[in-house]
Amino acid sequence: MAILINGLPGEMVSALDRGFNYGDGVFRTLQLRRGRPWMWRWQYARLAHDAARLRLEAPDEQLLLDELMALGRQHELAVAKIVLTRGAGARGYAMPVAAASTRIVSVSPWQGYPQEYGEQGVTARWCELRLSIQPALAGIKHLNRLESVLARSEWDDPAIQEGLLLDQDGWLVEGTMSNVYLLRGRQLLTPRLDRNGVNGAVRDWLTDNVADFGLEFIEKRLFAADLIDADAAFLSNSLMGIWPLARLGERVWTPSPLLQALRQALLQQA
Amino acid sequence: MAILINGLPGEMVSALDRGFNYGDGVFRTLQLRRGRPWMWRWQYARLAHDAARLRLEAPDEQLLLDELMALGRQHELAVAKIVLTRGAGARGYAMPVAAASTRIVSVSPWQGYPQEYGEQGVTARWCELRLSIQPALAGIKHLNRLESVLARSEWDDPAIQEGLLLDQDGWLVEGTMSNVYLLRGRQLLTPRLDRNGVNGAVRDWLTDNVADFGLEFIEKRLFAADLIDADAAFLSNSLMGIWPLARLGERVWTPSPLLQALRQALLQQA
Repeated sequence: MAILINGLPGEMVSALDRGFNYGDGVFRTLQLRRGRPWMWRWQYARLAHDAARLRLEAPDEQLLLDELMALGRQHELAVAKIVLTRGAGARGYAMPVAAASTRIVSVSPWQGYPQEYGEQGVTARWCELRLSIQPALAGIKHLNRLESVLARSEWDDPAIQEGLLLDQDGWLVEGTMSNVYLLRGRQLLTPRLDRNGVNGAVRDWLTDNVADFGLEFIEKRLFAADLIDADAAFLSNSLMGIWPLARLGERVWTPSPLLQALRQALLQQA
Repeated sequence: MAILINGLPGEMVSALDRGFNYGDGVFRTLQLRRGRPWMWRWQYARLAHDAARLRLEAPDEQLLLDELMALGRQHELAVAKIVLTRGAGARGYAMPVAAASTRIVSVSPWQGYPQEYGEQGVTARWCELRLSIQPALAGIKHLNRLESVLARSEWDDPAIQEGLLLDQDGWLVEGTMSNVYLLRGRQLLTPRLDRNGVNGAVRDWLTDNVADFGLEFIEKRLFAADLIDADAAFLSNSLMGIWPLARLGERVWTPSPLLQALRQALLQQA
């Protein structure tokens, strides 16, 4: 792995960084294809949006692109992570008036996920953990990820690729590392992320593009049963792209040509 | 500030540490008096308890005492912080099978809070942020502190010493950096911390000791109105000890001799 910390090669951050002490920051995980970040337009927009929600200033777009390219160009395929925190500060929760943010860009070569996950679909399970409800943080890919850690620790069967999460009120929200969607006729339904959940860049791409497939993008409160009853269901994030759900407990879905068309279009996206 | 990272002098932690990336860890803040940690029995018990909740192994007690003493003995009074994380790990939320935890002990000389806060009481306000409900993390002093950061950022008037928080269901929980209590006759009431909140070491001390003052310690769901209607109210943490509430909005409390007796007993605690 290669890392730039505020533009300089390094591996260490201050033990006083508010990212470390409070999780006071945001991040993105993305694919690099020969150093070029896939879905960059949506990634950067979402990074800037999330940063603003926490009153952080987003790094300059070209600066980030240069850093990603510098670290990733020698790899055919790589995973990059961008972390932005409120930087080192004095003791106490109050946001420092003049904090200099910390920017970490890291890149690792990657082989990609097995192709059959995208083509044949994956197996998911229900997590027991119920996500909390916090509108002030909903949708943000912030560094307070203990719920994701606890949820992901519920299983270690490698035949299960993802765990799905309901919230404290019983509504469907997301997977531990993905957004979740279902198809019902020509409707593409996905949970509203106004009370919890993480809004991924692929979710924004779908918002912008599913009309081309004759689909209506609908954000809605959804039950677990809505997912079970759906014609098809799938997951998304910036590493997997789109993974159809093939199995969830006893429910088995047959492959959906429409989903494959959507997945191929996403893969072609620059 | 002096820092030991896994026992070695240093200021930096790995950018891959799960504390930094996920807030995957716990911490304590404590007072050192000539290097001796105040309320250590309660602090260590709570650290061990919180660590176990997140499936982390607590550091050896004597090791921590030695490190605190090494950093703090030259100071009459100091603030220490102990941070314990799941260490550096590969990408992904799953807990590493063989992760080596990261232990950070930091100490800064401290002047203490103004004495009148404890003697005359402090002014508090209500925060607009409502705490989320997450039984899996309730009570733990973990590193996911964005809610505390957002709540503390709601005011910057130095005449207000603390902000009080309700949760999503409207129940009273805590202050941004303190536990909250009220006196009603011979009852000492404090919010249950089974759905959210941070259980401080002083709260445990009170649990063990208030019977000596003829008080009954009761954990209970409490309304904001219960606080307003109380004979007296106070805050606690390991730096402030006990601060009586003198004012909360329009509500003004007169000094309570019982509270002062309790506060003095706490101050005498080793």
